[in-house]
Amino acid sequence: MPQLPLPPGSTLGILGGGQLGRMLSQAASRLGFDVVILDPEPNSPAGRVSHSQIVAAYDDPEALTALGRAADVVTFEFENVPAASIERLAEAGALVAPGPTALRVSQDRVDEKTFLNAVGAPTVDFAVVDTLDDLVVGLTELGLPALLKTRREGYDGKGQVWIHAIEDAPAALESLGGRPAILEARATFVRELSVIAARDWDGHMAVYPLGENRHEGGVLRTTLAPAAVDEKTQVRARAIAEAILDGLDYVGVIGVELFDLGDDVLLVNEIAPRVHNTGHWTQDGCVCDQFEQHIRAVAGWPLGPTAAHARIEMKNLLGDEVDQWRALSAKADERLHLYGKAEARPGRKMAHVNRVLGTV
Amino acid sequence: MPQLPLPPGSTLGILGGGQLGRMLSQAASRLGFDVVILDPEPNSPAGRVSHSQIVAAYDDPEALTALGRAADVVTFEFENVPAASIERLAEAGALVAPGPTALRVSQDRVDEKTFLNAVGAPTVDFAVVDTLDDLVVGLTELGLPALLKTRREGYDGKGQVWIHAIEDAPAALESLGGRPAILEARATFVRELSVIAARDWDGHMAVYPLGENRHEGGVLRTTLAPAAVDEKTQVRARAIAEAILDGLDYVGVIGVELFDLGDDVLLVNEIAPRVHNTGHWTQDGCVCDQFEQHIRAVAGWPLGPTAAHARIEMKNLLGDEVDQWRALSAKADERLHLYGKAEARPGRKMAHVNRVLGTV
Repeated sequence: MPQLPLPPGSTLGILGGGQLGRMLSQAASRLGFDVVILDPEPNSPAGRVSHSQIVAAYDDPEALTALGRAADVVTFEFENVPAASIERLAEAGALVAPGPTALRVSQDRVDEKTFLNAVGAPTVDFAVVDTLDDLVVGLTELGLPALLKTRREGYDGKGQVWIHAIEDAPAALESLGGRPAILEARATFVRELSVIAARDWDGHMAVYPLGENRHEGGVLRTTLAPAAVDEKTQVRARAIAEAILDGLDYVGVIGVELFDLGDDVLLVNEIAPRVHNTGHWTQDGCVCDQFEQHIRAVAGWPLGPTAAHARIEMKNLLGDEVDQWRALSAKADERLHLYGKAEARPGRKMAHVNRVLGTV
Repeated sequence: MPQLPLPPGSTLGILGGGQLGRMLSQAASRLGFDVVILDPEPNSPAGRVSHSQIVAAYDDPEALTALGRAADVVTFEFENVPAASIERLAEAGALVAPGPTALRVSQDRVDEKTFLNAVGAPTVDFAVVDTLDDLVVGLTELGLPALLKTRREGYDGKGQVWIHAIEDAPAALESLGGRPAILEARATFVRELSVIAARDWDGHMAVYPLGENRHEGGVLRTTLAPAAVDEKTQVRARAIAEAILDGLDYVGVIGVELFDLGDDVLLVNEIAPRVHNTGHWTQDGCVCDQFEQHIRAVAGWPLGPTAAHARIEMKNLLGDEVDQWRALSAKADERLHLYGKAEARPGRKMAHVNRVLGTV
């Protein structure tokens, strides 16, 4: 096992070569680290700004062995890394952060909610759905409408369906293709918040100010941060984030999505064991952004400061919205971050822009 | 010739793979550009964070043709690019910025000072030195001590020698190995300042606040910026920078080193037609740093804002001073920038740290 903190010149491995991997790689290189990307897509956005890329599937044993040997620490930009891959990396001598517990818990929505409730982080009520009977019982208990999701995988609103009437239950279940599912009660929230937080190998934690998020069709459109919340809400969110980080014995940055029900009641919608789209505002609002924070945490460096110096509106540019780059590039208060993706497929995250609203 | 502004996904070529090329590459990738580095050293600091590197000499005709074909625009991190290389790049279809005039002028200290005086940017008095006779006459005219430098090349105090007595003239001239030289009168300055400025293809200009610099043994140690100067000095420095940029029909970022003689008198010490060590403070003091500014300029994008939001003390870490990374990484107000160089040879620029002194 490598000695921590990792000195500059060490190598960081990243599973996943998309925009999150790209921005992690850029942060790592500012701190003097070399980066190796593993991604099946040749010439990936992250691979193009990194020392090298291994082009292979995430469960390719030889590729994982090679990555584990090349890298002193391995991290990932997405949470659906097979558990066997993590074991293979550890066998090849690499540290892996976040660790297997965080991955296992966040890969299954039932395990996740069970864990959250156990550490005092409340969620909506839910029911495990394996059969149509389970679903009908669940709908009766949780009320209508309710949200049916696959237990595993799915992101940005994929693999989920709202059920508004009992008679729609069979079709809804069928739309998930027979995969194990979870039924979630509807949360009547006044707004969606999220908190980005980090924990290092020694258990120190650092929590950024809350962001307020707006989704469309299950996809994040904007984050406004720091969110205009009262001190009580900020304190409550921090306590929830810290309970989750400690409960998972977590190392790295985590994203925690929250429903604000009003009256200082926060429910956890979901957690993402990685840097998070709702934390992109930190690039232009904080001295140490979420990407550097994650690198610091996994490399065993002290965590950086999380205070905001500017109020930011982060906006995702999806598909051909990226064509706005020309107009946006002329605005002194709009900070463009482009991901180097060639094809602007509809809905694809191509870039984001941080609008500086003022100092904090 | 490519159409400007270059859209994201275009390719930028950089001659030189050191730390300046590395930070230029990182800025380019944030804006969605791919970067190709040309550097004779394999696995260079910039090559390791770029799409690819061509490993070849800067005057290798085939390598230059390949770079010119791959890149929509080519720029450089150092000013001693052979003129023939620029022509070769242009023939292969690439734009080159800054252009040949800026290179030619800044490659020869006599041409540079002659140009500067012609555009109203005063310098110390100087004499052209080809023979020992020239040197003796020069010393008589300019007074003692005076500084003898090679006309071409030399940086960080290399290729120059102070002459304190007429009888030291022969040895001084010999130490330059018979190369054409320039003799410069001593400037009795109260402090060393520098101004970082940019100009785009349409002649728009953007000038950062002044920095105050401290050198040791000809090597920059610290920059404090924005410097505590009166408005008159700032206005004068801006006018000098703009006269130089216009006079060179310049595109990109330039560094202008100034001697402040007091009483609002500024002399230009030298110009560097590239991003400049005394501009590193902009990474943590400005919304748009000098590296992004340079990419914006050469890619035909609008120039970014140059106002400072923080007061910064930039400190170079030379040789084994880079071992301080561990202590520095724990300080919330110190922003580390490491160059990914393996060998910490004495005096080698390994990293810099921007200390945030407060908001502006």
